[in-house]
Amino acid sequence: MARREEIAAGLAALLSGEGLVTDPRELVPFETDAFTAYRRVPLAVVLPATTGEVAAVLRYCAEQGVPVVPRGAGTSLAGGAIPQEDAVVIGVSRMSRILEVDYDNRTATVQAGATNLSISDRVAADGFFYAPDPSSQLACTIAGNIAMNSGGAHCLKYGVTTNNLLGARLVLMDGTIIELGGKALDAPGLDLLGLLCGSEGQIGIITEATVRLLARPEGARPVLFGFDSSEVAGACVSEIIGSGIIPVAIEFMDKPAIEICEAFAKAGYPLDVEALLIIEVEGSDAEMDAMLARIIAIAKKHGVKSVKESQSATQAAQIWKGRKSAFGATGRIADYICMDGTVPLGQLSHVLRETYTIIERYGLRVANVFHAGDGNMHPLILYNVNDPDEAQKAEAAGADILKLCVDAGGCLTGEHGVGVEKRDLMLHQFTETDLNQQMAVRAAFDPDWRLNPSKVFPLELDMRKAS
Amino acid sequence: MARREEIAAGLAALLSGEGLVTDPRELVPFETDAFTAYRRVPLAVVLPATTGEVAAVLRYCAEQGVPVVPRGAGTSLAGGAIPQEDAVVIGVSRMSRILEVDYDNRTATVQAGATNLSISDRVAADGFFYAPDPSSQLACTIAGNIAMNSGGAHCLKYGVTTNNLLGARLVLMDGTIIELGGKALDAPGLDLLGLLCGSEGQIGIITEATVRLLARPEGARPVLFGFDSSEVAGACVSEIIGSGIIPVAIEFMDKPAIEICEAFAKAGYPLDVEALLIIEVEGSDAEMDAMLARIIAIAKKHGVKSVKESQSATQAAQIWKGRKSAFGATGRIADYICMDGTVPLGQLSHVLRETYTIIERYGLRVANVFHAGDGNMHPLILYNVNDPDEAQKAEAAGADILKLCVDAGGCLTGEHGVGVEKRDLMLHQFTETDLNQQMAVRAAFDPDWRLNPSKVFPLELDMRKAS
Repeated sequence: MARREEIAAGLAALLSGEGLVTDPRELVPFETDAFTAYRRVPLAVVLPATTGEVAAVLRYCAEQGVPVVPRGAGTSLAGGAIPQEDAVVIGVSRMSRILEVDYDNRTATVQAGATNLSISDRVAADGFFYAPDPSSQLACTIAGNIAMNSGGAHCLKYGVTTNNLLGARLVLMDGTIIELGGKALDAPGLDLLGLLCGSEGQIGIITEATVRLLARPEGARPVLFGFDSSEVAGACVSEIIGSGIIPVAIEFMDKPAIEICEAFAKAGYPLDVEALLIIEVEGSDAEMDAMLARIIAIAKKHGVKSVKESQSATQAAQIWKGRKSAFGATGRIADYICMDGTVPLGQLSHVLRETYTIIERYGLRVANVFHAGDGNMHPLILYNVNDPDEAQKAEAAGADILKLCVDAGGCLTGEHGVGVEKRDLMLHQFTETDLNQQMAVRAAFDPDWRLNPSKVFPLELDMRKAS
Repeated sequence: MARREEIAAGLAALLSGEGLVTDPRELVPFETDAFTAYRRVPLAVVLPATTGEVAAVLRYCAEQGVPVVPRGAGTSLAGGAIPQEDAVVIGVSRMSRILEVDYDNRTATVQAGATNLSISDRVAADGFFYAPDPSSQLACTIAGNIAMNSGGAHCLKYGVTTNNLLGARLVLMDGTIIELGGKALDAPGLDLLGLLCGSEGQIGIITEATVRLLARPEGARPVLFGFDSSEVAGACVSEIIGSGIIPVAIEFMDKPAIEICEAFAKAGYPLDVEALLIIEVEGSDAEMDAMLARIIAIAKKHGVKSVKESQSATQAAQIWKGRKSAFGATGRIADYICMDGTVPLGQLSHVLRETYTIIERYGLRVANVFHAGDGNMHPLILYNVNDPDEAQKAEAAGADILKLCVDAGGCLTGEHGVGVEKRDLMLHQFTETDLNQQMAVRAAFDPDWRLNPSKVFPLELDMRKAS
């Protein structure tokens, strides 16, 4: 306890009043994130107000040998923000201002704790938006989006965070502040900005970001395509993308997901089909009509059972509300774990079929709702959290499904990151040589392995490196 | 000489007959690249046929302490492929096959020495293309494109190499082979693929790449917009982009560039204007008409003097031929150095004005022809290479222009890279702290500083690190 008090006192000297949390009761909200299977109350939580405070805290923690866990809004589904007991959590939530909107360059510069949606909200009246749209966009921060390279339903056309990030201010573990990128295209030297995207809080703490703004399209229209089987719907997606058509979104739901979401959102989803695609097109009416005609022709080749265009902005909003609340709606009826494997599109039907086989083998249920156009699958494995046997089965089934994705030429994660959840599966994706190289690069930023330790890399490799 | 012979013998043992060049006369073509101001005949050139041969050569060079200079087609405008006298050049030109085209996943997997254009050529009949289109696309290799993160006229809409690269096979200096990315979206762990783009041959030798294919649009139409001044044309570009419109290309030429290109290509460029924008729109006729109407309305606000749409595929090809041969056409009338600064679009007019002032101060001439929609400027500074005084002035003027770009919030390079040319300007762009961090990351791949040394980083820092 003396150590805890010593660190707390040291931190208190660096921060203004509300920037430090050490009361055990007040630390509880920080014990986990949206991957609630693991919980650890951290040593302390600091909520700095400036880049300077972040640098001071990091410098102090480096001197004291204290591990540091960065935290955005704590919405990580992979345990990216789960603390260790001996760690200081640095949360960026108090740094949430939008610093500049620059339409000439179509950029916004924001503090790292700004929520994803707050950027689009700020520029909406002027006809602009920030493209990546994770389901948690109301809460999640840009810092977390960058750390996890977050995506979302509309990333099929607009790309994920790395495609929309132009610059960042980063504080290294030793307190050094570096600037990456900026408003101009590209940058000379090594692309540390690209490296930062998806680095899961292990190379530094992000305090500011400059992102790309895009003009809102003239119109957008989600269309519902019902199919008699998941495999056929998957094959249809593959052919749409394979023919070169890139709608703004292709979302997939199988029957369990349709039922769960429709019960929650009353979105008008068809209940007499086995699989549903929500395909959104955008542009002028003529552009949308032309693209839809091509998509419908392909869907008909695959025996589409029903095609239903949204008839109004309200209906379009309902359709998206259903999709975006899929995880929440599922949580109302069962406990679940959400997988995030990604596969080459040609493998979509095969992987869906094998997913059902795996789930059946474990005697569980699954709802599939995911970004099909990207091949980014999200099987929600349903189970009872109070039944230890079922919980173990769910975890094992999840691992089998992710391995299936990797074996099909895909990867362990599309947008949620590795975190705690998938660290031990990394050796299924990569050779030890590959991982050693990644760890060597990480060590170039944090040689003593203090930043968000025990994540991303398999524990057996991580421990060896850290010791 | 004994050393040279010893290394040659060592390499000969590793390679098949035509894979090794040591005859001094045969080494001459490798003494420089398209940045012809520097020339050094290397110790030897190897042209491996397989990844295994690349690995064997690198392992041998690492053991012998021999520096290695990777080479694609040698089209670097920044001296990225210029050898040292004590270095072995590893050229990938013999590994030029397209290994797989996968339409289901819209990917092509190619050997690293495949030319940029050969990919589009292979898939053109099926209606697809590979988007990044550097002017040298007939010759330049994918390996070089990745190393320099190459762009091109159509990157305004489609992004540069990093946005179109999905995977790569990389051989590290110690002979280790690692695989980065793949056909699936994103990848867990650190984004070494993003880091590879633009790493200028300093972290490994690329032997294979998987790239994104895109469907060719229904139609495309370049339109010529003539203006009374470069500044007004620049302001017009800024407003088009600032309003959220993203045509597939916005190319800029000032009067000297128009005259040079028109004389060469007979493209129908207007000769009675001070500045020309080539704006290309694409899609269906209705889509092109709609986007053009918005662009023309903005151009009229800026007092556009003439608007001329291409009337046929032949005319469109002539317009692009004029633009793409700008460097070659300029070379017919004068020696030149080509700058590659990039600026935030809001600064375009200001930077153009200041560019003319700088050039005037040195008593030189300049032709500006560049990717205006990206803010990626290419002033061609004209001079007489046989007049040492003028050559020195041209170099000094170029440095002033690049500093101007950085000071306007931009950067030293958009697509050509740093190479030899701009290494000493890096401290104008970055702090020493920033560069030290980049060098630490580089060292995680090549701790002994053997790969493409004396490039990218300022010599004073590079030497310190290497020693």
